[in-house]
Amino acid sequence: MIDFAELKVDALLVSGLSNVRYLTGFTGSNALLLLTPKSETLFTDPRYTIQASEECRCPVQIVKAGSLFIGAARTIGRKRLKKIGFEKARLEYEGYELLKDQLPLGASLKPLSGIIENLRMIKTQDEIARIRRSVLTNSEAFSSTLALIKPGTSESDLAAELEYQMRLHGAEKPSFETIVAAGMHSALPHARPTQEKVAPNQPLLIDMGATQNGYTSDMTRTVFIGRPDKRAKSMYEAVLEAQLAAISAVRAGVTAEQVDRQARQMLKARGLEKEFVHSTGHGLGLEIHERPRIGKRDKTRLASGMVITIEPGAYVRGFGGVRIEDTVLVTNNGCEVLTPTSKDLTVL
Amino acid sequence: MIDFAELKVDALLVSGLSNVRYLTGFTGSNALLLLTPKSETLFTDPRYTIQASEECRCPVQIVKAGSLFIGAARTIGRKRLKKIGFEKARLEYEGYELLKDQLPLGASLKPLSGIIENLRMIKTQDEIARIRRSVLTNSEAFSSTLALIKPGTSESDLAAELEYQMRLHGAEKPSFETIVAAGMHSALPHARPTQEKVAPNQPLLIDMGATQNGYTSDMTRTVFIGRPDKRAKSMYEAVLEAQLAAISAVRAGVTAEQVDRQARQMLKARGLEKEFVHSTGHGLGLEIHERPRIGKRDKTRLASGMVITIEPGAYVRGFGGVRIEDTVLVTNNGCEVLTPTSKDLTVL
Repeated sequence: MIDFAELKVDALLVSGLSNVRYLTGFTGSNALLLLTPKSETLFTDPRYTIQASEECRCPVQIVKAGSLFIGAARTIGRKRLKKIGFEKARLEYEGYELLKDQLPLGASLKPLSGIIENLRMIKTQDEIARIRRSVLTNSEAFSSTLALIKPGTSESDLAAELEYQMRLHGAEKPSFETIVAAGMHSALPHARPTQEKVAPNQPLLIDMGATQNGYTSDMTRTVFIGRPDKRAKSMYEAVLEAQLAAISAVRAGVTAEQVDRQARQMLKARGLEKEFVHSTGHGLGLEIHERPRIGKRDKTRLASGMVITIEPGAYVRGFGGVRIEDTVLVTNNGCEVLTPTSKDLTVL
Repeated sequence: MIDFAELKVDALLVSGLSNVRYLTGFTGSNALLLLTPKSETLFTDPRYTIQASEECRCPVQIVKAGSLFIGAARTIGRKRLKKIGFEKARLEYEGYELLKDQLPLGASLKPLSGIIENLRMIKTQDEIARIRRSVLTNSEAFSSTLALIKPGTSESDLAAELEYQMRLHGAEKPSFETIVAAGMHSALPHARPTQEKVAPNQPLLIDMGATQNGYTSDMTRTVFIGRPDKRAKSMYEAVLEAQLAAISAVRAGVTAEQVDRQARQMLKARGLEKEFVHSTGHGLGLEIHERPRIGKRDKTRLASGMVITIEPGAYVRGFGGVRIEDTVLVTNNGCEVLTPTSKDLTVL
């Protein structure tokens, strides 16, 4: 899996907690994992003695006092490892400094990036099953809440209800801060729920994800309270067309930027290119944002087993926004849209 | 506030998002703040143009393409700053490397730690008001949920209800993963809610916090479903005594470790010293864990305006655990317990 020779290191010290979880199953909040071609050692503190022994498939060292880096450096010395790769995007400078100071004479550190993240792009059958479950929970929470939406309900009460329903359907937590954006708020791609009330003749944008068994999901739907006017309806149709076009471009072998381009071209044809201010999507799994990025300049070739979102949108300040998003599994011949929720224009 | 001369730097680059929020009010997810003795500049990306202009009290630079570090390095060059302090515990090695590569000739980086965190220890009146509000929301959510607890309810349904109630009472989100631990699960200080059902004659430990207007709160209560046996009752009394003893030791001028020692000595007198496996408490504010740590070897002197938790506990594997926690405001003559929820032994 990890080609130590190609990386020119004797060992890799994994400090990103989601990477540690991916490789070992450990879900605690303090851990380091030392990988060599022949061994794996997890370092954690005494709070997690029982949990680590239950969750981990590899030997565990409990570091009784002080930083885990001291324990890791001791093992590096004992195993006479010389060149140690570390995750430069997942290690604070303070940890790097501590590690460097503790390393035995003759050992050195090499910054690396994306090693485990690239492995994580292709999901195993077990991971896909978990993501399917999260996606279903998320959609169930959405439909249980939809019935409660009426003029006078506040954005933040709806967000509360959506997250409550997720949990009742088995989620541990939301995968990110739930977005409920009514009316003109929907024009802000990262709107936070406010006390603002849902009013008639407005779009209502809901972007939500449920984390279940550690795995995330992501869906956006834009519904209308009362019949949308012509402009809003045509924006909805344009975004939906763009979303469907991008989905139809997804298949193993295609690059991420090609999928992004499909969505962008469709919106351009409707004069909405400048209103689409973000990427078309992103990978997800243990984290809500994983590789690849479905956007300009990401040349990653999609492969069977990747799970990505497809979520074009259009945002007009002072008017409102529309975004439509599904979670999608890449297959050899195309893709499977995991999200079961209808994308027909919905008028409440 | 920041003594640049003493730190021997011309500028401080703040990369911790909670530190950026503390200093500027900006709540976005991507930002850097460059501080000099005479100026403040916030760097963020185009997604946050509107939000930054609304939230920030200082000049904002929108970095259109690429990393914010590139924008910051450009400003460092233009202002001819030479020695740049950075937050070593809040900057990944990757960011450090990027910054170092981009710095103009003659400029250099100096790792610093705890500069803004130490300022944050003493809360302003506005911060105290926000924490009071979060604490009340949290306690309201607890009491609304208490009425629903009965044998047969699962830990995770209770956690869902607690978090739902927090939101309905105005919180943005839980301050951490809510702990609901029934029976023997209560012996794990960091238990996660499971499908396990609450059963009669068991302790039920609930550790919860609500984040409102950005500020956290933290409370633990251990209640009993049906009369506790003699051993459980005596454990409860011992932990409560320890908690009250620690609270009575809190006042400006006392060190954090002295407060911790109070709780520890009380539990030792009851033969429960070894069952108390964590610190007595911690500061809180924008983050759920802030300085000081109320534990062994933390010699920080408490000061008026600090907000800390007091949360001793005792955990017996195969039997159960008790923890009692309040959020407390340090004053010159003692402290004010902000948490209004009763600590009398509660039998449901």
